[in-house]
Amino acid sequence: MRFRKWFVTCIVTIVAMMGGALIAEANANGELTSIIEVQKYYRSIHIMAMLLVGFGFLMVFVKKYGRSAITATYLLVSISIPLYFLKDSLGLLGGVDSDIDRLILAEFAAASLLICAGAVLGRLKMHQYLLLGLLFVPCYALNEWLLLSGGLGMIPEGNFVDTGGSIVIHAFGALFGIGAAYSMTTKKEYQTPIGSDNSSDRFSLLGSMVLWVFWPSFCAALVAPKDIPTTIVNVILALCGSTIATYIASLKLRGKISIADIANAALAGGVAIGSTCDKVPSSYAFVIGILAGILSTFGFAVIQNWFHNLGKKVDTCGVLHLHGLPGVFGGLIAIIAVDGISKGNQIKGIFITIVVAILSGLIVGKVLSLSGRRQTPYIDSEEFEIDERII
Amino acid sequence: MRFRKWFVTCIVTIVAMMGGALIAEANANGELTSIIEVQKYYRSIHIMAMLLVGFGFLMVFVKKYGRSAITATYLLVSISIPLYFLKDSLGLLGGVDSDIDRLILAEFAAASLLICAGAVLGRLKMHQYLLLGLLFVPCYALNEWLLLSGGLGMIPEGNFVDTGGSIVIHAFGALFGIGAAYSMTTKKEYQTPIGSDNSSDRFSLLGSMVLWVFWPSFCAALVAPKDIPTTIVNVILALCGSTIATYIASLKLRGKISIADIANAALAGGVAIGSTCDKVPSSYAFVIGILAGILSTFGFAVIQNWFHNLGKKVDTCGVLHLHGLPGVFGGLIAIIAVDGISKGNQIKGIFITIVVAILSGLIVGKVLSLSGRRQTPYIDSEEFEIDERII
Amino acid sequence: MRFRKWFVTCIVTIVAMMGGALIAEANANGELTSIIEVQKYYRSIHIMAMLLVGFGFLMVFVKKYGRSAITATYLLVSISIPLYFLKDSLGLLGGVDSDIDRLILAEFAAASLLICAGAVLGRLKMHQYLLLGLLFVPCYALNEWLLLSGGLGMIPEGNFVDTGGSIVIHAFGALFGIGAAYSMTTKKEYQTPIGSDNSSDRFSLLGSMVLWVFWPSFCAALVAPKDIPTTIVNVILALCGSTIATYIASLKLRGKISIADIANAALAGGVAIGSTCDKVPSSYAFVIGILAGILSTFGFAVIQNWFHNLGKKVDTCGVLHLHGLPGVFGGLIAIIAVDGISKGNQIKGIFITIVVAILSGLIVGKVLSLSGRRQTPYIDSEEFEIDERII
Repeated sequence: MRFRKWFVTCIVTIVAMMGGALIAEANANGELTSIIEVQKYYRSIHIMAMLLVGFGFLMVFVKKYGRSAITATYLLVSISIPLYFLKDSLGLLGGVDSDIDRLILAEFAAASLLICAGAVLGRLKMHQYLLLGLLFVPCYALNEWLLLSGGLGMIPEGNFVDTGGSIVIHAFGALFGIGAAYSMTTKKEYQTPIGSDNSSDRFSLLGSMVLWVFWPSFCAALVAPKDIPTTIVNVILALCGSTIATYIASLKLRGKISIADIANAALAGGVAIGSTCDKVPSSYAFVIGILAGILSTFGFAVIQNWFHNLGKKVDTCGVLHLHGLPGVFGGLIAIIAVDGISKGNQIKGIFITIVVAILSGLIVGKVLSLSGRRQTPYIDSEEFEIDERII
Repeated sequence: MRFRKWFVTCIVTIVAMMGGALIAEANANGELTSIIEVQKYYRSIHIMAMLLVGFGFLMVFVKKYGRSAITATYLLVSISIPLYFLKDSLGLLGGVDSDIDRLILAEFAAASLLICAGAVLGRLKMHQYLLLGLLFVPCYALNEWLLLSGGLGMIPEGNFVDTGGSIVIHAFGALFGIGAAYSMTTKKEYQTPIGSDNSSDRFSLLGSMVLWVFWPSFCAALVAPKDIPTTIVNVILALCGSTIATYIASLKLRGKISIADIANAALAGGVAIGSTCDKVPSSYAFVIGILAGILSTFGFAVIQNWFHNLGKKVDTCGVLHLHGLPGVFGGLIAIIAVDGISKGNQIKGIFITIVVAILSGLIVGKVLSLSGRRQTPYIDSEEFEIDERII
Repeated sequence: MRFRKWFVTCIVTIVAMMGGALIAEANANGELTSIIEVQKYYRSIHIMAMLLVGFGFLMVFVKKYGRSAITATYLLVSISIPLYFLKDSLGLLGGVDSDIDRLILAEFAAASLLICAGAVLGRLKMHQYLLLGLLFVPCYALNEWLLLSGGLGMIPEGNFVDTGGSIVIHAFGALFGIGAAYSMTTKKEYQTPIGSDNSSDRFSLLGSMVLWVFWPSFCAALVAPKDIPTTIVNVILALCGSTIATYIASLKLRGKISIADIANAALAGGVAIGSTCDKVPSSYAFVIGILAGILSTFGFAVIQNWFHNLGKKVDTCGVLHLHGLPGVFGGLIAIIAVDGISKGNQIKGIFITIVVAILSGLIVGKVLSLSGRRQTPYIDSEEFEIDERII
């Protein structure tokens, strides 16, 4: 009898404790969930700064094309984000529940589109950038769905390692852009180089720095709170590595430093660390950054010259060297750097991306060229009022 | 007896559960409250970036007036924020308990002041911008108090819908500025146009982009955490809508795109969605943005020309077209878009704002003109050292 | 018997309540800790924006040295952050457990290094900036350890008041830089002035504004959540104070406003409020800002001229006037403004900093001059490719 009384008392105590804890947690959880969503929102704003100010100003270096580059950036962002929302609300090619997650995924699509546009910059009219956006987003969403959401059962969900989008965002955008540039550019156009505006260097460097600063938020955008510190330290160390490596490689490969190398290749560490940013120790991250910086600078300083001498001048901004090569490198490095990775699926995913990106890029380039083309690059004054604004 | 025992046991369990939950919540609440305050603080920093970098650089397009525009921005922000704090510490015209809420409200006042200053830019000396700030803030605080805090019992607190300040911030600042410009500008001045500095376009676009990027934080600054995701998605969709609409409208109305339209009217969606940003579905937000972009571009491309041809050249930056019209439009749209809104109070609030803003603007313009005026716009070299800085 | 029963029941209830609360808190604590870390991370990103975009563009005003200034900024940040991480991972001179705290401390070291570099800007080649970074960080870490971590038992941990680094970051960097500039600069060099590039004013002002906007996050980076609102309001009011004071002092001391004063001295309030930002009432903060603005403008407008007339032209960016004097002022003001401060330790810490900074600066300057020196300032074209980028 006495024992039974104590037993009941203990049970009551434990039940009450657990119950109280559960109630408190349930009450707190609502608020905690909101708080975590708001924190994600700040990362989405950082990404928006990268899209508009970062990519926008990084691209103003093209001669007599500054207004167009900025306006194109505005239009590409403004068409791709609502389009991605529309796709999600129609339930096509996967989708998420959280508004902020959807916003971040839409921004990722916009980032990939801006990378793609870098390859054809100066060869499109404004309405063609809008058309490019309309055609690009479905292809991007298809590839994203195949790699990350188990689309068509090709790669089981969660089996492709690409937290910060080295493959899905960077390599896809770059290869799509090169495909489009290749199929839409005539032989004559190849030979008409796109000049660069020397006085815009500082604007390009501003764009570059804005990308550098907010890159950690890009990679950590959808990472769980507890993994964020590791992730962002990794991204920053990778960027430090690629920045130093770019300076040295640029000096060694060219004899003098190229400011275009600094503005671009310094970011290659961020591109390459994307796939593995939450999964490697920080010393690895620094080394990945260094290697990516060397690779990217080699692209700008050596590979670009080869193409140039062959008379093959596609890829206005050199997205192959900043996003294409370092992106693929980042996706491949995961195979040796991440424990327990499914190597087969990783390789399969990279392969799918390359195929989908290049094929759809080639087709879209053809479609774009049907909507109007010509042999010399566009300049601002064709589409913009260029006179003193008297107000 | 047995029943009574069980009854007591159950009561004990429930009391203990609830008590435990309450204690846990009380303990957690202190921290949660701090965390939510810190999150608000990040939005306040985003707003500060809009005030200085955003508005500051959007206004550097005036010819030979770049240094002055930036310095004026610095001074207007630095005078209005402490002044608003002083008002609050004196307990005048309402007030809030939280330091961060007060900071955000002070930044709203500074934003409205910068909008107002856009109308008279180039027509004031530096000390007159300080004087403008000193005179503007009390008028702004009065209107804010009448509309949002039940001042004079005109509108019951909480009955005016204007979360992101379409009316209280944007329309008020623009109409006050136009009133001031009208009463301080002589006929001769009207006819001396203020030239624009073509080479500053990229700086203006930088300012524009910074405003675009951080606009969601402006509208969501004081919104509760759980409503933030909806709010910011709405603001971003409205901005996307106005950006695309501006491109199309600018091209249709002018034949060529005006980069000034892009830099300004692309933001009109943010102005117009202010009132209803946390209360409408996202499809509405996109449409509101499109309409605001068209309205604003119409203002810059058509209305501004009418005034110009009439020899009435007030409003240096076109704040009527960017903040005035889209602001009033945003306040009115709430009447049809928000369920359960008090239509009478909404209209009354808009009416009060128009009257208070124009009247006080007219008076303040007169006062400013007493402190010094002249017929031609000022240029940097009158107040600034313009020689090589030898260091 | 009945009493005993009630007594047991009460004990059970209380135990269950407390237990439930503890369980709930323990569960919540893990998440709360993560959330607070993520919030700190946002401040670290704000600081990164200050380091690259802020300091970087504030320094582009040197004639024909814009590319070099930006590249140097990139290199200095990229060498100092990994180096500080390395120091910590080796367990040298103190260290912290949290990844984000370590990142913020590394950014503080980078900020101090950039301040130091401002004194010798234009007199180093790129690889010498890297060397400067390698030599500076250990000296900085030594001083930080002596003042804040009880190193060598000189100042008991927690007894030196310097939350936002007026002394440890600003004064140290400035004095180190002046020491280095003094010992590496030849008499001939003194007399070759470094010209300023007039057209870069707007970029300098952009850098200045980015520093102003994010300064609150710099000072509040390691402050506990509950003290953040007070801290950031103080920092903002100090900046408002110094901005207004700078305008007035510049006008009074020079007759006309110098835009260099505005770009620099407007920030002096942020430097000076550092030590006491979380410990003084907001009215004090405003006054500290005003005094710092006057002091800094006096430095730029008057002291700099004295040195100039003496033929002593070290300190390219005037870091003595922006960071040195206002920093020491901020550290000293703590003695009278902070209740219960240990005056002896405060003075001792300032004294240690001055000695360590100047001595190590003198030595490092000598080492730098051994690695290459010459009489005229460097210009971009010596190290950078300056031709049209044909792409």
